[in-house]
Amino acid sequence: MCQINVGKNEATGIPSEVLESFLKQVLLREGVGRFDASAVSQGLLDASLRGVDSHGIRLFAHYLAAVRGGRVNPRPAFSLQCTKSGTGVLDADHGFGHAAGKKAVEHVKELATINGIGAVSVKNSTHFGAAAYFGNEIARSDMLGLCFTNSDPLIPPTGSSEPFLGNNPICFTAPILGEDPFCLDMATSQITFNEVLRLRASGESAPAGAGYDQCGYETVDPKKIVSLAPVGGYKGYGLSLMVEILCSLLAQMPYGPNVGHMYNDTLEKRRHLSHFFLAVDIGSFLDIEKFKTHIAALAGDLRNQIPVDSNAPIQIAGDPEKLCREQRLAYGIPISEVEVELFDQLSDLYGISWRESSD
Amino acid sequence: MCQINVGKNEATGIPSEVLESFLKQVLLREGVGRFDASAVSQGLLDASLRGVDSHGIRLFAHYLAAVRGGRVNPRPAFSLQCTKSGTGVLDADHGFGHAAGKKAVEHVKELATINGIGAVSVKNSTHFGAAAYFGNEIARSDMLGLCFTNSDPLIPPTGSSEPFLGNNPICFTAPILGEDPFCLDMATSQITFNEVLRLRASGESAPAGAGYDQCGYETVDPKKIVSLAPVGGYKGYGLSLMVEILCSLLAQMPYGPNVGHMYNDTLEKRRHLSHFFLAVDIGSFLDIEKFKTHIAALAGDLRNQIPVDSNAPIQIAGDPEKLCREQRLAYGIPISEVEVELFDQLSDLYGISWRESSD
Repeated sequence: MCQINVGKNEATGIPSEVLESFLKQVLLREGVGRFDASAVSQGLLDASLRGVDSHGIRLFAHYLAAVRGGRVNPRPAFSLQCTKSGTGVLDADHGFGHAAGKKAVEHVKELATINGIGAVSVKNSTHFGAAAYFGNEIARSDMLGLCFTNSDPLIPPTGSSEPFLGNNPICFTAPILGEDPFCLDMATSQITFNEVLRLRASGESAPAGAGYDQCGYETVDPKKIVSLAPVGGYKGYGLSLMVEILCSLLAQMPYGPNVGHMYNDTLEKRRHLSHFFLAVDIGSFLDIEKFKTHIAALAGDLRNQIPVDSNAPIQIAGDPEKLCREQRLAYGIPISEVEVELFDQLSDLYGISWRESSD
Repeated sequence: MCQINVGKNEATGIPSEVLESFLKQVLLREGVGRFDASAVSQGLLDASLRGVDSHGIRLFAHYLAAVRGGRVNPRPAFSLQCTKSGTGVLDADHGFGHAAGKKAVEHVKELATINGIGAVSVKNSTHFGAAAYFGNEIARSDMLGLCFTNSDPLIPPTGSSEPFLGNNPICFTAPILGEDPFCLDMATSQITFNEVLRLRASGESAPAGAGYDQCGYETVDPKKIVSLAPVGGYKGYGLSLMVEILCSLLAQMPYGPNVGHMYNDTLEKRRHLSHFFLAVDIGSFLDIEKFKTHIAALAGDLRNQIPVDSNAPIQIAGDPEKLCREQRLAYGIPISEVEVELFDQLSDLYGISWRESSD
């Protein structure tokens, strides 16, 4: 077995293709359709490779429980309605969000190829993982991608104490000459709730202004944090609301506090999540090679800016993930003890090895 | 003359239609084309009515200087290229940004009506005022609007001291049943440079983390602030870069530090600004009345959240501007001493009164 360790808190580094194949095989054995199993395993490994561990293979246990519990439909009948020449609505039939997103991205790219721009709204979906998985797929087709999803209520509107909106992500992608796409994939909260949980466990304080207590007052004590501050105060609140409108209102799905919880609800309960995908065909504005050259120059100019700290060179959005991806492609994906235990159990259950690289 | 004062720092309150007509007449006398003069005066008054005084009639003196200096082409030959069924490129021929934006909005609404979604890139433009002017126009046609522009370099990339990107605004709009559209119109910096100038004059400190000194270190001394912190640190830097890509790269215009300065360059120098307008036809996704009813319910739910401070009810983006608009429609637009002086001079020069309401 591959024993190379990358980063912290991991026991082993496993080649991503081995893990992707293993997770896909498990999902197939669990009755998940081929397209869906492929999308989920690919999406999870894509996030793990880029170091976005909160949205990587760590989620597999939850996804498995959600499909076993009945929340996720393992063999959804996606229904795509083409509403105008540049727009469509996909009913995901409560299937995996990764699969619904992948189907929506296929369609939105077709729309943008024909019309120069296209948008697809997705309804009756579930958690789709990291938005970057879809945004990068759009950018790899020489398009600009904008991907959004709504999520569990975590952010109170400015001035209130009650969580209402999700930390709804904004993902923007663009192709760059000679490297993986430019990828901004940001939550609209300052820190994630996973980070709060980590701080609680480690005994560290939260950054000032990142979380609120039950009464809606700012606190740095992670044990008291029950809701998250939007990025930049009322501006992040506005951005989160923008995403909520683009997702739940266009898809006619529940919004804000009516959205099904990822962890706090029973695993039988449908979540009725909604997403919005938008693609802009760059070739409809200028020669694509010219664009990719110009954006590479812009990225280069930014990275060449003089840093305040000479040990911390200037980056652009997505650079840390690109560096991590290179490392993990070379040295494998780190696996936690919890994952080792789960994968061993599944390996025994189905007679599929996840340690093939050691053979 | 109407003597009612609204807000602070103003001497008089003048009906907006009187001011709009006066500014338009002056522009016509200065040789500006009819469409352009109308767009500029309407755009400035729209911002003034909503209380966005930084982008309202205060800018008229600068615009006048820019057209007199030769930076702004008073009678541009707009050229619109329809590139695909959903996309277009408008060459603004260095005319007023307000006029270029108005023309682009007319076109993007047509594209979205036909295709469900449309986008127009604008090149060779100048300052277009407040993005909300265009976004609200899109929303009033029962569409979602997304409007962007690039601007002078003011924000350093995270970790550098040199301003590179503009505090490029993001504007998102949506129609709501029974009231003016929902309008998020935010700069991607925490505070504006106009606010820094105000703090310098008043002797107050800047909010912590809002500005940097020459060496790139955070400072609360407004006299030392030479660049602005992006909203939410690296996230706002990413958002500003997204806007730069959507604007200057799609329009093949200069980016970042190569963008012409509004005030620091000579008034002969073209700015080559670029904008990006996007419209989503809501009716291509669901019944428009249903959407407007749902978003009104969402807005109502948010406004009805219990506030931490009972004197500060919960608002949504654009609410303060709506309240101000109501007041100023009733009591007129406040005019500063500087504006009184300029308007009197122009009144004498062209024999047009700006005090008609007093007759």
